[in-house]
Formats: sequence, C-alpha cells, structure tokens
Amino acid sequence: MDIETLRSRAPDHWMTAAAIRTLTLDAVAAANSGHSGMPMGMADVATVLWSKHMKYDAAHPDWPDRDRFILSAGHGSMLLYSLLYLTGDPEITLEEIRNFRQLGSQTAGHPENTLARGIEVTTGPLGQGLAMSVGFAIAEESLRARFGKKLVDHHTWVIAGDGCLMEGVSHEAIALAGRQQLGRLIVFWDNNAITIDGSVDIADRVDQPARFAAAGWHVQEIDGHDPEEIDAAITAAKSDPRPSMIACKTHIALGHAAQDTSKGHGALTDGQQLIDAKEGYGWGYGPFEIPTEIKERWEGYGRRGAEDRTAWEERLAAASAARQAEFRRTFAGDAPKKLSATIKALKKQVSETQPKVATRKASEMVLEVVNPIAPETLGGSADLTGSNNTKTADLGVFDIEERKGRYIYYGIREHGMAAAMNGMALHGGIRPYGGTFMCFTDYARPAMRLAALQEVPTVFVMTHDSIGLGEDGPTHQPIEHLAISRATPNMRVFRPADVVETAEAWELALTAHETPSVLSLTRQGLPTVRTAHKTKNLTAQGAYVLAEAEGKRQAILLATGSEVSVALAARDRLQAEGIGTRVVSMPCWELFAEQDESYRRKVLPAGPVRVGVEAACGFGWDRWLCGERGREKKAGFVGMDSFGSSAPAEELFAHFGITAEAVAARVTALL
Amino acid sequence: MDIETLRSRAPDHWMTAAAIRTLTLDAVAAANSGHSGMPMGMADVATVLWSKHMKYDAAHPDWPDRDRFILSAGHGSMLLYSLLYLTGDPEITLEEIRNFRQLGSQTAGHPENTLARGIEVTTGPLGQGLAMSVGFAIAEESLRARFGKKLVDHHTWVIAGDGCLMEGVSHEAIALAGRQQLGRLIVFWDNNAITIDGSVDIADRVDQPARFAAAGWHVQEIDGHDPEEIDAAITAAKSDPRPSMIACKTHIALGHAAQDTSKGHGALTDGQQLIDAKEGYGWGYGPFEIPTEIKERWEGYGRRGAEDRTAWEERLAAASAARQAEFRRTFAGDAPKKLSATIKALKKQVSETQPKVATRKASEMVLEVVNPIAPETLGGSADLTGSNNTKTADLGVFDIEERKGRYIYYGIREHGMAAAMNGMALHGGIRPYGGTFMCFTDYARPAMRLAALQEVPTVFVMTHDSIGLGEDGPTHQPIEHLAISRATPNMRVFRPADVVETAEAWELALTAHETPSVLSLTRQGLPTVRTAHKTKNLTAQGAYVLAEAEGKRQAILLATGSEVSVALAARDRLQAEGIGTRVVSMPCWELFAEQDESYRRKVLPAGPVRVGVEAACGFGWDRWLCGERGREKKAGFVGMDSFGSSAPAEELFAHFGITAEAVAARVTALL
Repeated sequence: MDIETLRSRAPDHWMTAAAIRTLTLDAVAAANSGHSGMPMGMADVATVLWSKHMKYDAAHPDWPDRDRFILSAGHGSMLLYSLLYLTGDPEITLEEIRNFRQLGSQTAGHPENTLARGIEVTTGPLGQGLAMSVGFAIAEESLRARFGKKLVDHHTWVIAGDGCLMEGVSHEAIALAGRQQLGRLIVFWDNNAITIDGSVDIADRVDQPARFAAAGWHVQEIDGHDPEEIDAAITAAKSDPRPSMIACKTHIALGHAAQDTSKGHGALTDGQQLIDAKEGYGWGYGPFEIPTEIKERWEGYGRRGAEDRTAWEERLAAASAARQAEFRRTFAGDAPKKLSATIKALKKQVSETQPKVATRKASEMVLEVVNPIAPETLGGSADLTGSNNTKTADLGVFDIEERKGRYIYYGIREHGMAAAMNGMALHGGIRPYGGTFMCFTDYARPAMRLAALQEVPTVFVMTHDSIGLGEDGPTHQPIEHLAISRATPNMRVFRPADVVETAEAWELALTAHETPSVLSLTRQGLPTVRTAHKTKNLTAQGAYVLAEAEGKRQAILLATGSEVSVALAARDRLQAEGIGTRVVSMPCWELFAEQDESYRRKVLPAGPVRVGVEAACGFGWDRWLCGERGREKKAGFVGMDSFGSSAPAEELFAHFGITAEAVAARVTALL
Repeated sequence: MDIETLRSRAPDHWMTAAAIRTLTLDAVAAANSGHSGMPMGMADVATVLWSKHMKYDAAHPDWPDRDRFILSAGHGSMLLYSLLYLTGDPEITLEEIRNFRQLGSQTAGHPENTLARGIEVTTGPLGQGLAMSVGFAIAEESLRARFGKKLVDHHTWVIAGDGCLMEGVSHEAIALAGRQQLGRLIVFWDNNAITIDGSVDIADRVDQPARFAAAGWHVQEIDGHDPEEIDAAITAAKSDPRPSMIACKTHIALGHAAQDTSKGHGALTDGQQLIDAKEGYGWGYGPFEIPTEIKERWEGYGRRGAEDRTAWEERLAAASAARQAEFRRTFAGDAPKKLSATIKALKKQVSETQPKVATRKASEMVLEVVNPIAPETLGGSADLTGSNNTKTADLGVFDIEERKGRYIYYGIREHGMAAAMNGMALHGGIRPYGGTFMCFTDYARPAMRLAALQEVPTVFVMTHDSIGLGEDGPTHQPIEHLAISRATPNMRVFRPADVVETAEAWELALTAHETPSVLSLTRQGLPTVRTAHKTKNLTAQGAYVLAEAEGKRQAILLATGSEVSVALAARDRLQAEGIGTRVVSMPCWELFAEQDESYRRKVLPAGPVRVGVEAACGFGWDRWLCGERGREKKAGFVGMDSFGSSAPAEELFAHFGITAEAVAARVTALL
C-alpha cells in the first residue's frame, strides 16, 4: 500500500501514528544523529498496541501490574520516547524530546532504564531486550502464581528487529520461552528487510516464522502498516497459550526519500526530505508540534488504564496487611527481615563446626537456609545444577503446569539465563540467581554488563573458579574472568574463602538494590578460615585482617577465595622462621575500595612486604600491591600468567607454583 | 534395537566401533574423570565416517587437503583420541590414551589443538566447534576458488551435541552456513536426549530438524547406531548442495548401566559396570587392549587416504614453482614479502601529509594497500561495514556464486563471526579479520578467548573504542573492554594513536603466527602524532618515547590511542609552565611487557611524576603507574571510572574530564 492509500483507509489512525513519525524526524534532525527508520516503520504497530491493547496508566509508569513494553531494537528509541511523551508520561516531556541524545537528558541514544520510570529496560546491544523479555514473562507467571491474578495479571510486549533475531541470544531466548510456554509474551518482529550493510538478504535468509514455530511459538504474519491486521493479530496472540511472534512486514523510514534503504536505518537529517516526508503524511505542523487534537487523543490512550489501575490499588488495599506488606517488600527489592539473623546463625554454626567444603557447597548451605525465608528468590543453572549447587530442596521446579516452582532448568544457555535474570530483576518482585562455570562468564558477558549498567541486583553464581576445576582443562579454567568482572563498573565480585565469607557474600548480594553480584566459588574443598565467630559482616568491608602478624610485621599476604588458606599456610611457614606475617582476606575488592582511607591504611599499612595470592591472572593486582601505600620493590604476586592445563587440581596448583611454599619463598626473596 | 541385535546385524562394524567404546571406558576409569557417554553413543557414526567417508591419511595429520573433523561436543574427547590412536596418528599413542587428562599429556580433558596435529580445534565451550566449522567450510570454498579443486577439495565434519545446539552461537553459525550454502559442511547431531540436568526435554523442546531446515539446511533423521543408515545419510549429505544436518538418534553410554541417563554423560568409573558393559559388547579383552585384528582394521582405514594424499602431493609438485610457493606460504601463515615495504611506504607518506582521520579510517587506509598484496586476507564485519571501515575496493563479496570474493557480510553476529574467523585461521590458508564496535567484544568474547587459547592470529577490528563514540551512549561505549582483552593471556591489544601506529599495528597483526590481535580504533578524527618518519616499527616495542621532555624531566605522560594527542596537548601546557614533560605512547602493553628491562627503564625511568591517560577504566594501569619503577604518590590516572553517557563526543570528553587541561592539572597536583 502506498501512503495515500494508508492515509485514506484509516485517516484517524494515520494521523495518530504520524505523530510518532514526525517527532522522530524532528528529534533526529535536532540531534543530528539517531535512527529514524525504525520508529517510522513501526509507528503503526506501536499505535495500535498503545491505543487499544496495552495495559498501562501513563501517569503512573511504575504501577506494578502494568504491561511491560520492551523495545529490543533499542536504536529506535524515539519510538519509545514518542509514545511516552504523547501518552503523558510525567518524565518524558517535550523538552526531553527536544534534548534527544544530549548530555543529561532522559532521552539517551538508546533507552536507559535508569533515566526515567517509563523506560523498562536498557536496550541497544541487539537481542538483549528480547532475551530480557523472557525474564519479564517468567516473573509475571511466577508472581501471578504467588500473589494471584488479582494482583498480577499482565503481558510483556516486545519489538524486535532483524538484528535481534540474528544475534545468538535470540535463539536461547525463544527456545526458553517456547519450552516454558510463556503465553503472555508477545513479540513483534519489525520485518523491514533492511540492515546497516544492506538488505537483510545479503547476510540472512532464515525463515523466521518457521524458526519460531520450531521453538514452540504461535506465529502470525501481517502487514505492519494495516491497523486492522495489527489489531486482529494482537487479539489472536493474546488468546493463544503459546508465546506469540507477529511478523510485521514494514517499510523502514516509511514515507521518507530513504524508505526501504539502509540509509533509512540511520539519521535522516536532510531538511528538504524531512519537509517532503511530512507533506506526504499530510502533516502540516512545525518541528515538534503536535496538534492539540492528536495530543489529546494520545493522552486519552494514556489514561485508558487509569480505571484498571485504581481498581488494582483497591484490590491491593483489600488484601491483608501482611500480604500488602509482603507484596510491597518484594517489589521494593527489600530483603526479608529474617535474612540477617539467618546468616548470622549459619556463620556462628560453621565457625564452630568448621566444615571443609567447597565454596560452591557453602553457597548451597547458605541457600538452604535463605530460600525458605526469601520467597522472592528464583534460582537456576545453565545445565550445571549439581555442579553449581544452586538447587535447594524447597524450591520446586518452575514449569508450564507449576508456576510456583522457584528453580529453572535454563538449559545450556548462559547468555539467555543471564539476560532472563536481568528481566526478572527489572520486572520487580523477583530476586534471581543463576549458576554456571565461571569460565562461561564469557557467554553471559553481554547480559552481565547490562546488569551493571541497568543497576539491577542479579546474582551470578560462578563456580569452578580457577585451575582448581582440574581435569576439564584450560577451556573450563577461568584465568582472566575475575579481572573481567572487576573491571566492569557497578559490579561486585565476591570471592569468599569459606562458608562464613560465602554467607556474608550472599547477604550482601541479597541486600543489594542497584548492583549485580558475581560469586566466585570453588569446585575444591576449602578449610574454614573464619574460626572465630563475629556477628559483623566482615566481607562488607571488602578486605580485613584475618590473621595478624606475631612479632614485628614484616609481610602482608593478600589473598582471596581458595588462596586464603594457602596464604595462611604460608604465614605458618614464615612465622616459623620468625617473619611476622599478616594475612588479609580480600573477598570483595570493590567494597574495600569504597572504605575510607583510614580503614584501608589499617588493613594495608605502608612498610611490610606485600604478596598477593590468587589463582588467576595478576591483571589489576598492582593496585593493592604497588598502590595503597605499597612499593614495587616490596611487592610480589603468586598466581597465573598463562592459560591453565588439564590435570588433577592439586597437581595444577603445584605445577603453576601456587603453593604455601612458593608464597613464603616470594616473601623471603622480597625481604 | 538392543545391543544383541546391533551386534548380530553388523558384527564387524560392531566390534570396530566397540574399540572406541572400550577405550573410552578404560581411559575415563584410569583418569577417574571425563565424559564416557558421548563417545559410547556416537561410536557408530564416527566409525562409519572414519572408515568409509572421511578423507584423511592418519600418518599425515597436517595434509592440507584432508577433511576436517571437528568434535564440537568436546567433552567427548575420548571419541577423537580413540579415533586418532586407532587409525595410527603418529602422536596420539596408546601411552597418551593411558595418560588421559594427566599433566603434560596430549589427551587433555577437552581437545586442544596445540597439543597434537590431529586435533583440529580446541572445543569444550559448547557451540564453538560448530561455529568454527563454518569458518573451516568458508576457508575451503575460498581456497578452492583460489587454488582450484586439484589442490583444495575437502569436507568439514562436525559432531555436535544438544548443548552445542542450545547455545546461541549455534544460531549464528547455522544461519550463516545456510545463507552461504556451505555444501561441504556436514553436521551430525548427537540426539541422545540427555543433558547434565536430566532429559533435554526439561529445558528444551525445539524441533531441531525444523530449525535447521528454516536456516536453509538439508536435514535427515536417522538411527545413529545403524551403520547402513549412517552410511546412506552421509552419502546423501555429500551430494546435496546445502549444508547438511544429520540428526542421529543415539543412546548415551550405550550398553552401560548408565545408558540413557544423565549419569551416563559423565565419568563412568564403576569397575563392575565397566566389566558388564564390555561383556555386553562381546569384548573379552583387558583394559586398553585392542585385538590385533581390530587395530589393523582401523589402521587400514587410517591408510585409506594415503593414495589420495600422494596424488595430491604430485598435483602440487606439478604446479608452477610460484604457485607452489604461494600455496605453502599461505598455509604456513607467512606474510607476503611485500608487506613490510608497503607498510613503510604508507607510514612515510602519512608522516608527511599528516592527515587528521579516525583510526578506523586509518585502518581502512592500511587495508587499501595491504589487501591487494595479501590475497589470503578475508575481511568482514558484523553489519557495520561502513562504520568499521573493513571493506576495501578490491575485495569483492564472498557469496554462493562468488567464492573468490574476500569480504563477508557476517550479519549481526559478532560471536559467529569471531568463531568463524578462528575456524578459517585454524584451517590454514586464510588470514581473517572482522569488525564490530569494541563494546561488542562482549558478544564475541567466548570466541576471542578461544583464539588466544588456540594460538591463532585472528584479527579483531574493534572500532568506536571509547566514549568518543558519542550519542549512541553507554550501551555502545566500551569502558572495561580494553582491560578484558589485555587480561586475556596470549592476546595483543593495539590501540594506535594515528595512521602511522595503525599501520604498524596491522603489520604486527598480519605477521603474527600464534597470537590474535585486537585493534582498538576510534570513531573520531585524530591528528597525526608520528610526524617524523621512522622505518622501524616502533609499535613492536609496545611503548616508546613519542615526545621528549624539554629541560628537566619532571613528568611522564603515558597514553594510548585517541588520548596520545590529549597527552601531547597537556605536554604543551606543562612545558609552557616550564615543567619538562615526556609523552610515552603505549600502543601495545603486551609487547612493552615483553621488552627487556633496560628498554623499559629507558622509557619509564624512576623519578618523574607519571600520569596515565586513556578513555577507559583504569583497571590494570597501576602496573605502569605504580609499578615499573613508579611510585603511588607520584602517579595519577585520567580516564573513566563509570559507564559513559549519551551526548556528542566532545561534550563527553569534557564532562568526564579527559582533557589536556585535566591531565596537566593532575601532573601539577602531583609535583
């Protein structure tokens, strides 16, 4: 259909949708950068969805039972900003639209959830929105099962582009959604056949509808500019028990000179072409001008859900006080009241019994006491349940017929798992954790970064965290992965030394509101090093003196995780030679860096020789060894400077020289 | 079919395949670790393939025109080791089989290509083998087009498991292979319906045959234990012009008490069960014992290709001396003779003309002169061709009907691209490079690590390498990505400051044999800083004095890439105040670390204040600031300590304080 036909067939719809197209053109022109084509292509779908189907109350973008709208094709951010502004979102004002892509605006180049409540997720890295949406849909199912349909009853809507569907993570996401039959998840594919390099065809000829059908999805194919087809498809999608994919045949940059071209994907800033496009739309208004009638129509759509929302508020108010409090607590992401006492009790017990267990097992011991008191946790593993020790007896398994189950078999999908967990955390009401081998941080990386950027407290349970993994060899032995997560802003990496520190790390992970946590856990058994019980969470300080020097303090050993016991053994050797040696356990660098200087100086005073011990690459260690009052000539590191090898773990530690003997020798060489 | 039936229907085949099964059982039992079930399940497929179809000469595992066998399900490494030992590979002896998973053996837990020539690839991280196989098949097509069928004419065979097919990268791989109609690629799916967590069904219900068909593959479904069905399917797959997937219904750990269970996936070490399994096989031999008849039969298979190989040697010998030399040069991975002079000429020219261009454009300038003299390069981009500047005029586009094309539109598949490039490099004869935004290092990570671990010189062209990317915002602005690649063993990260350093970096990348290179390139224009031409490749030293202090040397500024010109401008300010300031350009940390101490001391002498400048996180910088004769009290860093933001680039540099003014102020504060 040409524009003339589209205009004449549904004139009201046309002008309503044109508001999105023209705002996009104006904002991109003002910013002189951005992506015009996608919002212009998908304006019709978005208009039908937001005007007729989506459940929301524009004035209350954080209503917990709203439908979630996820723009997986995040480069088309002006679509979202237009919708928010037009419907009356309290934050995305016309001023923000005018400041598109400018410093300090809420209308960033790609949507950023931390900038405005109406922005559900941060998207842009392709496929992530789609993969997170699976987590949103799981969260909705789980919470509906927990709190009932009166309080939780909504859909998750996604707009995904060709890029989203080419990215590998899309496979993990749609397979997981299909397996779990997430019927409240509805994905629109912006089938515009154009990517940056040219027509999609030059790189991809996958039959996408067939692919989604193979994954267990309900699939429809429609003209993405025909409001009636869009409306009918949405209605059908909602009534189907499967997740739905609606393939919307669209024209990128509809009505612009760049329509149906790669150029149309990017910033359309030519003044005359902009004027011509608006003329073609029958849009006789100035830049950023939305005629009152159309703005009011949009605001009407934005108020459509107001009654629903107030009815929902009433239903919540009618619930018992305890139920209300619990609902609010979980959505606020606050930890259960009993958490602190539960952790303390476990710490006390293990400081007394001093078990020798792997920290992955320690993690399971923590979860065994935490999961029963924290109904908001939702655990899982990427097919390493028995190895990651992530499943506790009480959880049950989340499945099609058992939405109350709190454990997910994610399959061999580290990336999809990590992204889904982010989605759950963003949805609210769920505190997700999931396990894999630490080496597969690599697979989960794009989503782990987005956890940090989106400021969600996702917990990544990363076991088998060094050459201690043993015979599986270098493909499975992390070397650089602690450094990778430590280098990432707003991420906390915990490498606990025993059950006590593991419990403390979990407490911090479960009370975090805006920071994801990586738990670095061993495969191999470790002795209890915190044998004297302290109620205080020492891990919260990041590093602390675990064993003080006897006599003159000549050396400080800094160690994490499995190497803390190595450092303690080295201290024994050194003290036996009369060399006063302090051992500092450093379970969380980031938290230590946040401590004030007087505390840091107390832990790491100037003067003594310092040797760091960690079965990982030394990248980043100089901060603690040469920095923080240290000196290069008195600093050493015992760890890895290559990939690992396939052999029994104990042999590897000897082979790579990560032993108490080697640490002691390094100290004496530096004295 | 039960084992009795299988045995009686094809007794010779049965015993031949049983050799794989029993070697696997014995090796895993001896190691007390490993994965027994997969080799036991896929022994029949492997036997038919290696005995009847695969082109190889066991005595010459590095024959360039051999078929490639890729065990994507790398945990089943004993399948590969068994095949190599049985057919007479010169390296994988019985002694190696006995030393399975022991320190120093060639039979690591997962196959490692660097340990024996008969091991084509390093696998274990699931999906990687499948994704690399696409690169192998592309390399074969490309080299066949270049050198002709007489010299290049072989297949790529893959065994993939459920895990490989769940991983997202499998989607990118099969979509790319389908798009390119790589008919010489044949994948066996070990459809055993079992994963570590239980039956596949608990996590995945994708219709895999339908999924492959949707991606343009030829698909067959067979009984993976029936030698006749296997044989017929292979024959059909070879004759189909599409890539082929053969779904092989198998029983994991066939014939063992743990058959068809998750336990069967892992290490089967129970003594009595092992004996029982062998008895069921009709295998009356001791541990590691292969009866002469069966060993000879296997060795006969291993010699099947000997004639083919000698005929091939003759064909190569019959080619012109120049053609032979070129064939050998490209397969040896040696750079073209003209490379050095070509790079020097470009350096000289730009030192004179001093263009102000982005280093991504500089990279294109290098490729424009290098690609015409290096026919082994095969470039591409993950749908950012115009942004990554990876396509030069002479390359042509690799496509179904144009296998001579040397540029690949990889689509929005950073991970698949990186893995495919590794495959090409491992195949030999191709020097692959591919581009994306540096931030999407995250997507490519699993394959980038495998490039380093496999010691292949893949070139990762990572543009838009800082907040200099501008308005696209923090989702697209790398912060920790330099640290990620620098922390990885055996990886070189080049961050050139101008065209001259970019040319030097490319020269080093293209002459590397065993080390991948990351080129960190800017979006924004940079001045030429190397204005005095030197024929010597200064980047090869990793860091060097770019501008010496005038007067007493009070400060040293260390900078990389786009911040070298910031450091130079800061130096101007400081010198104007009479503060003698040296600027050290550090395009490659790893190469600088390899220099002897006397050179490093010359570049970074003790004494002066040191300030590092890099528009990235400071993680890792303390090595050069506080280490290497530095002192914490005289050290500073100007860079990023958070995620970036969406705004024009210049505003971001000012906002985050990465300016000449800030650098100069930091120096004076430290003096």
